[in-house]
Amino acid sequence: MNNPQLNKHGELQHLLTTEGLPASILLHILDTAESFVGVTERDIKKVPLLRGKSIFNLFFEPSTRTRTTFEIAAKRLSADVVNLNIAASSQTKGETLLDTVDNLSAMHADMFVVRHSQSGAAHLIARHVRPEIHVINAGDGRHAHPTQGLLDMFTIRHYKNDFHNLRVAIVGDILHSRVARSQIHALTTLGVPEVRVIAPKTLLPARVERLGVHVYHEMTQGLKDVDVLLMLRLQNERMLSARLPSTEEYFKYYGLTQEKLALAKRDAIVLHPGPMNRGVEIDSAVADGGQSVILPQVTFGIAVRMAVMSILAGN
Amino acid sequence: MNNPQLNKHGELQHLLTTEGLPASILLHILDTAESFVGVTERDIKKVPLLRGKSIFNLFFEPSTRTRTTFEIAAKRLSADVVNLNIAASSQTKGETLLDTVDNLSAMHADMFVVRHSQSGAAHLIARHVRPEIHVINAGDGRHAHPTQGLLDMFTIRHYKNDFHNLRVAIVGDILHSRVARSQIHALTTLGVPEVRVIAPKTLLPARVERLGVHVYHEMTQGLKDVDVLLMLRLQNERMLSARLPSTEEYFKYYGLTQEKLALAKRDAIVLHPGPMNRGVEIDSAVADGGQSVILPQVTFGIAVRMAVMSILAGN
Amino acid sequence: MNNPQLNKHGELQHLLTTEGLPASILLHILDTAESFVGVTERDIKKVPLLRGKSIFNLFFEPSTRTRTTFEIAAKRLSADVVNLNIAASSQTKGETLLDTVDNLSAMHADMFVVRHSQSGAAHLIARHVRPEIHVINAGDGRHAHPTQGLLDMFTIRHYKNDFHNLRVAIVGDILHSRVARSQIHALTTLGVPEVRVIAPKTLLPARVERLGVHVYHEMTQGLKDVDVLLMLRLQNERMLSARLPSTEEYFKYYGLTQEKLALAKRDAIVLHPGPMNRGVEIDSAVADGGQSVILPQVTFGIAVRMAVMSILAGN
Repeated sequence: MNNPQLNKHGELQHLLTTEGLPASILLHILDTAESFVGVTERDIKKVPLLRGKSIFNLFFEPSTRTRTTFEIAAKRLSADVVNLNIAASSQTKGETLLDTVDNLSAMHADMFVVRHSQSGAAHLIARHVRPEIHVINAGDGRHAHPTQGLLDMFTIRHYKNDFHNLRVAIVGDILHSRVARSQIHALTTLGVPEVRVIAPKTLLPARVERLGVHVYHEMTQGLKDVDVLLMLRLQNERMLSARLPSTEEYFKYYGLTQEKLALAKRDAIVLHPGPMNRGVEIDSAVADGGQSVILPQVTFGIAVRMAVMSILAGN
Repeated sequence: MNNPQLNKHGELQHLLTTEGLPASILLHILDTAESFVGVTERDIKKVPLLRGKSIFNLFFEPSTRTRTTFEIAAKRLSADVVNLNIAASSQTKGETLLDTVDNLSAMHADMFVVRHSQSGAAHLIARHVRPEIHVINAGDGRHAHPTQGLLDMFTIRHYKNDFHNLRVAIVGDILHSRVARSQIHALTTLGVPEVRVIAPKTLLPARVERLGVHVYHEMTQGLKDVDVLLMLRLQNERMLSARLPSTEEYFKYYGLTQEKLALAKRDAIVLHPGPMNRGVEIDSAVADGGQSVILPQVTFGIAVRMAVMSILAGN
Repeated sequence: MNNPQLNKHGELQHLLTTEGLPASILLHILDTAESFVGVTERDIKKVPLLRGKSIFNLFFEPSTRTRTTFEIAAKRLSADVVNLNIAASSQTKGETLLDTVDNLSAMHADMFVVRHSQSGAAHLIARHVRPEIHVINAGDGRHAHPTQGLLDMFTIRHYKNDFHNLRVAIVGDILHSRVARSQIHALTTLGVPEVRVIAPKTLLPARVERLGVHVYHEMTQGLKDVDVLLMLRLQNERMLSARLPSTEEYFKYYGLTQEKLALAKRDAIVLHPGPMNRGVEIDSAVADGGQSVILPQVTFGIAVRMAVMSILAGN
């Protein structure tokens, strides 16, 4: 029971990955997020739950979009937020990651939201800080992006009510995707009976079946009778690499079109973590179509991040 | 009556340009701004009018100065403000402008303050968003910069009381200036009987007379009996281009000196949108002299932006 | 009595340098900071002392760490804070420093926190602004960094109770260090009887003895019977210059190891302004050891900055 994410009472201490978290914790986050959906729809979108708390957005890798979601979530909880783009500052002055963290902790930080290009960075920080400080992983290398995974679960439950009767397909660059890893662990923990991954061999991790997923290399077979499609972003840098012949070729085989979507169930929903490459992994007709729940994902994402912060702060 | 800036009740829905706005709307903004001048002079410079609202400063073109004025205005209205410098983020990830906007809208944005190098960007966004979201154009290409135009009107009214008996001259690079366009439309709508533009031919748009202005190529004639001088900033990039012989030459003919200012009325006032190029379009003796109202413009600019935000939010 | 830092009643008007400030003012800041240490340890780390005030972090030289300390301090006083990284904006548009300041002052700024690579920049601004605006120097060239000096004094008093019986050594690159200058002036004003500087000749200013310090070139002699060690950061750019043979060589002679620390008093404390170059000016065993008070310095630094802001605002 040495889970660095839970305290000795089994409560959430840090959110680092969806892997190894019990279903009860995942469901508690989703249930708490339900209550915050209402807050973000009110005229005054603010609750005083984190008033006087100091949250540091510690971004060692730039991401305006993700930083913004956490900043908005924290401000709607009335926290004080400080944005730190570390690439451009003390790291260049030769300070170590843990010295930076110690320094900010000494300013009586309450929470760190960490984005880093190295897998394990958020874990390293979580192991290092004092118990009154909480760490949220906002994406570390290829490893995990748990709030993205959780908002996807929230979205799926919102439209499908239950996890226990679903067939879910994750499509695209599984190999490099921290989002895919966080989705797979959450889906299996929450009891989804069939999780599929659909990708060319060059974009699949070795022995991915061990994670409890079924592997497909072709959309025609993989999408058959699927309830939920989780599309992945094809990173620009992959497109230019030797792993892919061309983006046109990729779109032809793995880009989601209305035609391919018709292979799934009639009421299947389509998710994407954004930002989208239209015409690469997804066709605009699908992205903007009636089965897309891509924008609701963003809305729910604020509520899920508010829930995580609120739970970590002990509310 | 298909004005994208007004809702079906004829109220301000977006502020995109001063062009086509009725005088009643312009005057309502100026009158509302009067009440906010008092707020910014109080000991606690804050009112709760926009508490719990989320305002996104969406700057696709960097401008610390303009961003700061909107940030301060929003904070004094108690709004939550998020700054997004988009050049450095998702645009480089290949996301489209409207996908970025959809994404932020899904976070329950209330207002977008948009600065973009492309004319029409703010209009595009305004046409795209849901009716509960409001767009303020903070400068789009060569097209419009309506809050600058409005703060100039506020300043003119403050010192001259009325618009109906004024002779106003706009001096400088009219061709590339969104500020000049916003000034011309506001001045003519508010009933200024004589608006002049003074510039070399290379810095005037084709058929500028159509906007209702009188064209002058020399300061000696153009400044004669003028009540208000609206100086324009000479963009650095223009100075280096083939349109101008040299900045010295420009200063000699169009730079505002005490000597040239003496051609205008004795109580004429001098405005400039900043940042100034001292010794290029304006001499320091004038910029810092008794007829300059350049710093009051900045002060009034905060009140005008508070007014626009407050009106858009339905207060 | 023409001290630009004091108003005609002898009260603090600006904080520009520790030089020339009477002991009573320094002690008033330290005493006020004591009360804020409690605030930063509370559950809701916020007091409404500066509500509705506008504080501008005016950073002409990037420093995420220092900017963050002021941002956090201001937010915990409930002020509105605007961060301006000026290098990247209007300075490149050719605006002068004082035009930038005039502009922000016209937005009803209450306080400027100024970091600049030029010595004297904060003084220049303080002389220029209206009396209701207060300037805090957050580091100007090689000249001064008074809040750093003050937080060091706070830390020394916290651990040693009194200044009047201490032997203090400042170790490292005195020549280029604004921190060292602010420490020396504060220490001598507060009545420390013996202040030593320890450095190679190439890293000492000419006639440094005039500041009232004793000069040592070797750690063995300089550290003997010392109560407090103030380590300085060795700037990367100095390491590469001709002033130093190599960082290894520097560490051998001036890097603080447990062995060298043993020369000081047994209860001596070690301070460092950060960010540290581990293995250059300080060994990790010392930095993380029982005599290091480097992290408490950071904690006290927030309280000291809150105290300075609160006093300047008239509380």
